[in-house]
Amino acid sequence: MKLLLAFVVGSAVLCSVGNASERAEGASADREAVRQLVAEFDRCAREKDLEGFLSYSLDDVVALGPGEAAVVGKAAVRAWYQNFYAAFDIAMVHRPVETDSFGDLVITRGDATGTIRPVAGGEALQVDNKYLFALKRQPNGSLKVWRAMFNANGQTPQAAK
Amino acid sequence: MKLLLAFVVGSAVLCSVGNASERAEGASADREAVRQLVAEFDRCAREKDLEGFLSYSLDDVVALGPGEAAVVGKAAVRAWYQNFYAAFDIAMVHRPVETDSFGDLVITRGDATGTIRPVAGGEALQVDNKYLFALKRQPNGSLKVWRAMFNANGQTPQAAK
Repeated sequence: MKLLLAFVVGSAVLCSVGNASERAEGASADREAVRQLVAEFDRCAREKDLEGFLSYSLDDVVALGPGEAAVVGKAAVRAWYQNFYAAFDIAMVHRPVETDSFGDLVITRGDATGTIRPVAGGEALQVDNKYLFALKRQPNGSLKVWRAMFNANGQTPQAAK
Repeated sequence: MKLLLAFVVGSAVLCSVGNASERAEGASADREAVRQLVAEFDRCAREKDLEGFLSYSLDDVVALGPGEAAVVGKAAVRAWYQNFYAAFDIAMVHRPVETDSFGDLVITRGDATGTIRPVAGGEALQVDNKYLFALKRQPNGSLKVWRAMFNANGQTPQAAK
């Protein structure tokens, strides 16, 4: 119901109808949906649930990570995360800083911190990233990832204590 | 693109306004506006036209560059670019890869390549970045920067040839 409301409110904004309190409720629903979504990203990474993770991405997703060109499309993103999950044990927490809704597009940014530990052994790396996601509302009201960019908050990755 | 079309069609049905050719024209106009905007970014950087550059940013702009925390607000972005323009001679070219419109929000991503040369002397750095911008349409129709993130396409900056 909240998600339906969010859809209706989003559409209302586009049509220049509706009122401020309805829009505030829609935005609040999106913020909660984003909190749940990024918590799912963290769970999937921790449990190496690749299919779960990919279920939150659109087919035309583009991942924009540092140190390499854009990873375009779900097949390429699948391959990237398959390698990532195979190479590292991941314990990350995404924390949304702000979430804004523009009809069926939701923009959210935040920080993602934690550790990634090479499966092959060696020191864990302390990760301190920020991210910017563009999500698209689906016909069933859920939000899926369309564009995802991230980079480091510091100069270089630090060895975890 | 299919999802964008679905979004546009869904909104049109709900609002019962606009037609496909008008929407295609709008998207095409935004693509051209973005090409002009990023060309202006390059000109401003080359000419160290800080005020010109800042005129394309909203007061609540957030710049999300690698190696440091989010730079929040126009005053902080001004200080950042003031230092950057003072420290480097900049010869960059932004090339949009895709631009999509969601009402008054426009999402564009692309690559930005070129060189930055320390004013104090020393080797120029070859820059090969990708970027993701969220722009907001203003009452006069112009697009201004609301969120701007970038990171490197390669592992480390290379000395320019």
